[in-house]
Amino acid sequence: MKVLALESSAVAASAALLEDQRVVGEFFLSTAQTHSQTLLPMAEQLLSDSKTSFSQLELLAVSTGPGSFTGLRIGLAAVKGMAFGGDKPCVGVSTLEALAYNLRGFEGVAVAVMDARCQQVYTARFALSEGRVERLSPDEAISLEELGKVLEKGEKPLFLVGDGAEMCYNHFLEKLPRLRLAPPHLRLQRASSVGACALEHYAAGEGVSCGELVPVYLRLPQAERELLKRTSHGSGDAPSAAVAGKE
Amino acid sequence: MKVLALESSAVAASAALLEDQRVVGEFFLSTAQTHSQTLLPMAEQLLSDSKTSFSQLELLAVSTGPGSFTGLRIGLAAVKGMAFGGDKPCVGVSTLEALAYNLRGFEGVAVAVMDARCQQVYTARFALSEGRVERLSPDEAISLEELGKVLEKGEKPLFLVGDGAEMCYNHFLEKLPRLRLAPPHLRLQRASSVGACALEHYAAGEGVSCGELVPVYLRLPQAERELLKRTSHGSGDAPSAAVAGKE
Repeated sequence: MKVLALESSAVAASAALLEDQRVVGEFFLSTAQTHSQTLLPMAEQLLSDSKTSFSQLELLAVSTGPGSFTGLRIGLAAVKGMAFGGDKPCVGVSTLEALAYNLRGFEGVAVAVMDARCQQVYTARFALSEGRVERLSPDEAISLEELGKVLEKGEKPLFLVGDGAEMCYNHFLEKLPRLRLAPPHLRLQRASSVGACALEHYAAGEGVSCGELVPVYLRLPQAERELLKRTSHGSGDAPSAAVAGKE
Repeated sequence: MKVLALESSAVAASAALLEDQRVVGEFFLSTAQTHSQTLLPMAEQLLSDSKTSFSQLELLAVSTGPGSFTGLRIGLAAVKGMAFGGDKPCVGVSTLEALAYNLRGFEGVAVAVMDARCQQVYTARFALSEGRVERLSPDEAISLEELGKVLEKGEKPLFLVGDGAEMCYNHFLEKLPRLRLAPPHLRLQRASSVGACALEHYAAGEGVSCGELVPVYLRLPQAERELLKRTSHGSGDAPSAAVAGKE
């Protein structure tokens, strides 16, 4: 099954073409460039270089968050447009789950961590065993302190992956000697992992139409959090304000 | 330090830009396409997309073999030309060592294996520990049978990586239950690993000029092996005929 996957949830942007679990091609850029300028040209070049026509694609995959509001919208808009135009099934995958897929082949627990600012992280944990990835906890926005408490439990090696990995590693290393930092080439979001993860969800019957594909932000945008604070004395930063699937 | 790395030793071709060990960008294609048509355009696009000028590059890296005679020559010719034109230092790295670099972060032994046809493999072993890669054996062309004997020793998990990995895995699995197959996204040659490996060799003082960069074939080309057989009754297939650095 031919899958085109896009990833643009944070600083890195990438496009990958998979034939089942085999990576046919992947273009990856981690620069200060705007995803709106790089993502679709990379996908187009990838299809053209691999002599794959759009009509040959059988599935479109994209990471739906958590991540940058604008970044997620760029990836989702591109995939929604392509799926609508070509009447293709889609799978949206958690950015954190796709990060754990970078570490297939490792043995232990993947702790995917993205910097959510305001002393918070987006995080989730996944068991890594015999090449498989199994979710252990839901995607959530929690404080560094709360994450530290969670990581104290258990004995398996913990592999930190994601753009918040290095920050957490430095923060917790003294207390948690079983922490490991994912190697540099596997630390950031990769479209090939989004594609691999999407294939498993699709096999489990989780394909959707382009209209059903929505971003998952976990938190309200900063402007809305500040408005909430001013108008209702509620705390927009708190994880309890998590909003899933809000568009 | 900015490094441009090229990899074209087998079916996959890739170009990567690294800033020290951080992957700034990587374009990877594993199709039946000719490397002479894809490799340099990918490198050019990568530099242009990352807004990196050729003059900013401080090191050029390339895999020097073992591998396909034509593939290696395409990568080497490109790097030699760029290094000559820009007076840049180069590092040539073993294709097998760069394959082991795909598995940084794993714990055990990387067994890099490329299919050398004629019931032989190009292979070398590397210790994987705490994110580091340490060579355990030289690159060599040996028979599958000889490889089997070597792998029987020791107790650590053995991770097969390279285009010969799956073939070896299926061949030896019953006898060697500690064999693991590198996950699909890390199984083939990657320019980012060539760059990461080259950086360490460069730091160890192993940079060379473009004129000193030579391919390492390990065996004579098939036509020469057959000629040797006919003219001298020697066996061109035997590993004892290994030729290093022959151009």
